[in-house]
Amino acid sequence: MRVTTSFPLGTLRDTPSEAEIISHQLLLKGGYIRRINSGIYAYMPIMLRVIEKISNIIRKELNKLGCSKLLLPQLHPSDLWKKSERWEGYTAGEGIMFNLKDRQGKEFGLAPTHEEVITSIASEIINSYKQLPLCFYQIQTKFRDEIRPRFGLMRSREFIMKDGYSFHSSKEDLVSFYKKMEIAYENIFTNCGLETVGVDADSGSIGGASSKEFMVTAEAGEDTILFTKSGSYAANIEKAVSIPNEAIPLKTKTDKLLETPNQKSISDICKNNNLDPTQIVKVVLYIARFEDKSEIPILTCIRGDQNINEIKLHNLISNKHSSNLIKLNKIENIKHIEKNLSNLPIGYIGPDLKDTVINKNSYWTKTWLRIADYSASNLSDFISGANKLNFHKVFNEFSFSEEQFLISDIRNAKKGDFTIKGNKETLREKKGIEIGHIFQLGQKYSEKLNASFSDNDGKLKNLWMGCYGIGVTRIAQAAIEQNYDENGIIWPIQISPFEVVIIPTNLKDPIQKNLTEEIYKDFKKNNLDVLLDDRDERAGVKFKDADLIGIPFQIIIGRDSINKEVEFLCRSSKNKFKIASKNLLEKFIYESEVMYNKKS
Amino acid sequence: MRVTTSFPLGTLRDTPSEAEIISHQLLLKGGYIRRINSGIYAYMPIMLRVIEKISNIIRKELNKLGCSKLLLPQLHPSDLWKKSERWEGYTAGEGIMFNLKDRQGKEFGLAPTHEEVITSIASEIINSYKQLPLCFYQIQTKFRDEIRPRFGLMRSREFIMKDGYSFHSSKEDLVSFYKKMEIAYENIFTNCGLETVGVDADSGSIGGASSKEFMVTAEAGEDTILFTKSGSYAANIEKAVSIPNEAIPLKTKTDKLLETPNQKSISDICKNNNLDPTQIVKVVLYIARFEDKSEIPILTCIRGDQNINEIKLHNLISNKHSSNLIKLNKIENIKHIEKNLSNLPIGYIGPDLKDTVINKNSYWTKTWLRIADYSASNLSDFISGANKLNFHKVFNEFSFSEEQFLISDIRNAKKGDFTIKGNKETLREKKGIEIGHIFQLGQKYSEKLNASFSDNDGKLKNLWMGCYGIGVTRIAQAAIEQNYDENGIIWPIQISPFEVVIIPTNLKDPIQKNLTEEIYKDFKKNNLDVLLDDRDERAGVKFKDADLIGIPFQIIIGRDSINKEVEFLCRSSKNKFKIASKNLLEKFIYESEVMYNKKS
Repeated sequence: MRVTTSFPLGTLRDTPSEAEIISHQLLLKGGYIRRINSGIYAYMPIMLRVIEKISNIIRKELNKLGCSKLLLPQLHPSDLWKKSERWEGYTAGEGIMFNLKDRQGKEFGLAPTHEEVITSIASEIINSYKQLPLCFYQIQTKFRDEIRPRFGLMRSREFIMKDGYSFHSSKEDLVSFYKKMEIAYENIFTNCGLETVGVDADSGSIGGASSKEFMVTAEAGEDTILFTKSGSYAANIEKAVSIPNEAIPLKTKTDKLLETPNQKSISDICKNNNLDPTQIVKVVLYIARFEDKSEIPILTCIRGDQNINEIKLHNLISNKHSSNLIKLNKIENIKHIEKNLSNLPIGYIGPDLKDTVINKNSYWTKTWLRIADYSASNLSDFISGANKLNFHKVFNEFSFSEEQFLISDIRNAKKGDFTIKGNKETLREKKGIEIGHIFQLGQKYSEKLNASFSDNDGKLKNLWMGCYGIGVTRIAQAAIEQNYDENGIIWPIQISPFEVVIIPTNLKDPIQKNLTEEIYKDFKKNNLDVLLDDRDERAGVKFKDADLIGIPFQIIIGRDSINKEVEFLCRSSKNKFKIASKNLLEKFIYESEVMYNKKS
Repeated sequence: MRVTTSFPLGTLRDTPSEAEIISHQLLLKGGYIRRINSGIYAYMPIMLRVIEKISNIIRKELNKLGCSKLLLPQLHPSDLWKKSERWEGYTAGEGIMFNLKDRQGKEFGLAPTHEEVITSIASEIINSYKQLPLCFYQIQTKFRDEIRPRFGLMRSREFIMKDGYSFHSSKEDLVSFYKKMEIAYENIFTNCGLETVGVDADSGSIGGASSKEFMVTAEAGEDTILFTKSGSYAANIEKAVSIPNEAIPLKTKTDKLLETPNQKSISDICKNNNLDPTQIVKVVLYIARFEDKSEIPILTCIRGDQNINEIKLHNLISNKHSSNLIKLNKIENIKHIEKNLSNLPIGYIGPDLKDTVINKNSYWTKTWLRIADYSASNLSDFISGANKLNFHKVFNEFSFSEEQFLISDIRNAKKGDFTIKGNKETLREKKGIEIGHIFQLGQKYSEKLNASFSDNDGKLKNLWMGCYGIGVTRIAQAAIEQNYDENGIIWPIQISPFEVVIIPTNLKDPIQKNLTEEIYKDFKKNNLDVLLDDRDERAGVKFKDADLIGIPFQIIIGRDSINKEVEFLCRSSKNKFKIASKNLLEKFIYESEVMYNKKS
């Protein structure tokens, strides 16, 4: 392609101030994307080429698995999402789904995901086990009304995803297909020239028994990964389990009440009373709101040096109740408290807080759902709130009995913790960008949407399902986080908009111009993926732009044209050498093959 | 592809009752699309292949013109559409644009078209005439909240379009590019195997000076095309101009009042008073509502045998006013009339209706905007309403003076009319399906969105724009309207999901099975576009499905396998002959090339 006639570049001189992280800055500065609104971007021609290359890599790998590509609608009628009981959570609850009413007043959501639609189709086209397994996928724009859109395409409100859905006659077949998909995902990311790590993950609002995330490790990542050096364990912090360091036994057994004026934080109490955080039980109160409008107050206990993992807590509460958990909020709003609770000494709450503090005329359930993390329930002697302003209390031989407490893991694992596998390895921490997520959904959607098949025993059974997502636009940006330098992007060759750019330094010189045309035509004739920067610009501008947009190889045509020589430059290694133009094509093919093989 | 492992078919036995026209029926019955909601469809794998083939044909042709492919967002902030003054018309007015508020309460529309977004980008990236011309295009799902979604993909609420936008430094350059695009469009449709006709068209809410539609002629079309046999003229009825037959002169010059009790229609009056419709002036009242909330009452006059063209009327009124015309409604609602008009003898209105019938306390402007079509203004002696219940009146030497009347063409041309070119050719009529529309937008959007460039004289000027649409999913359906028989679809080979389908009649026979595999692998090895129906179904079922889904060539592998012979069938001609399997590949390549060349 020629820049002047069919491939305009739109590079910027300055780094847009709105962009916080390097990949976002480079996408804007390189003219790859343009902001239309908060979290909403146009993909310019140079970006679309990257997207199409990633899409092709995905398509090839999924087709090998026998997956069929289709295209589902983006406007979803609310009825379908009500059947799966996700409408409320995705709209009124989290509010992540844009929604609207049509001219007849019917409700629609703008799809962030397609389990409902594809399951509804599957229920119509799948009758017999003979048709299974089946896997459909699409590559399409998705929508999420993010609370805080940021980092460009990393957390945007419109983005491109590959989403796939498989259907099976048994759990075993699902698990076996899921494993094949796991390998396909690894191939896809390697073929995109990315370094990724697979981690155990929480299934979130998608649901299902098991799920795995694929992360590009990068400082700018919004996810935290905990892993062992040996590779024996890796998980998203949302899901990670671990064994914390041991608690220091509490010796003070006398003096049951402890005066602790204005000591609301763990560190204040420790400092003033010569205690260790592991000797304290921290109590955090929540209110859980369900789809059926019921509201249940939650009392959680955790060791003073640990933190509640609200995702684990959410899942635990959710699994205990028949109605959907829509929202889980900390009880901290004063008005909220005054309305529902009496004489609540905030900051001084203990595990034995009475149910009677809940007002009789409150809408809330009148008993605390008490939940203790293992780190707390393992303690019998500890300090905690005395349920009395400015007082803590020494608890001796306190028992977190299973009648009173739900005992579970609701704790954030953290670096330095031991793995639960007993091999005494400790966890390390890294930031990651999630670019893929695969789920064993089981029968969650097929039950709710009535998607069954007749099995080889003649019986009607619910379909087993898996679902598989890849963030296509996220891959593009994550690749930049892994591959850049002070001058700009350094694309992995596999997903670069072009493999090579030809840069004539002075097109007014007929010798340079002729050689440029000769080389360009030769490359085009050989179907090579080449861009020709034929702009009437100073050489310096073109060099700067070429470095910024990050195409892996540059061919610079300058004064040596007279000797039929050009310069060949590798963007990543910065290696640069002169070469006779007659050898150029062969050299490029060789070098690009080496680069492909190195990374994939 | 193999049907069992990676390309499930979803044909139906019965024709879905919801589908009114054949192409919609066949798309559903053939398993190409599945309905998710009114006007919202899933494109199944077999449909996506058709869409991708059409998209590729478009891409190749546009790339030849130097157009650059990009991808613009689907959620458009209202601000942008307010700048172009289209927000009100597209939402509150026609209501064709789905719209919503995000979690911050900001308004967004779901894009039916992208003039605003691309012009806003152009204003940022185009500085100099040296960068021009530029043309961007995308292939993307669009949204329209149709009042009456119907005919499957023909009038759906989600559909795929190619939309392109060009930018120029002068009107001349725009016109010259527009002409190239016109040829590119003709190539695209021919390359899709379609027969189309280009017609003059109204530019509608897109705007601009000149526009042309490309129509697939078909009985099921929703558009009416008027054209001459010689091809000298062709236009959409919305835009078509013509000369109506001559009026019969009115002889009755006496007896000015005519008692016409209960004679509200033209035919009633003619029948009871021995008149010809050409001797009558019909008066129709409208109320025009503008974006600035002003409301103007409109009085239109047209000859009794002619009909008002509301699109021409809309454009005329729109051009006369600075504020956007949002809605144009006939005055016929009784409550509406009672509120704003006094003593209005509906059915007996004449061109001289007084302004005083408009109530003083009405919100309406207090004078009629009087508009006469040429067919009325050419008459001086005629019958019209007497503005008195049950009476008409003879008008003698009445003058539709330009002080009182706006005189213009607001009439529907119709078949039998003469062309205005004076060559005395008459118009014929056909139904058509619009599959493409190209517009010379001029500077409408660049003015409103402040998109300027510095010209070679150093002055800042507004960009000249063109825009170019193709209904991708519509092409697919229109192609079926032109190509089907009693057994199903007969795809033009260019856009068929596959070029050939292999149908083994009995896979349990190892000889047939081996030959099938041999042929399939041979075709795959040669990169041919082949589907293998390897289902364990009766041969009859497979034949029926193959005819229904309409792949141009069928290879039937049956009992003659033992002699290494198969049957080769052409779906359109129904020609069928035996052939030795060793000659099959060559024969297929030859026959498919003939078919490609015949239609493109």
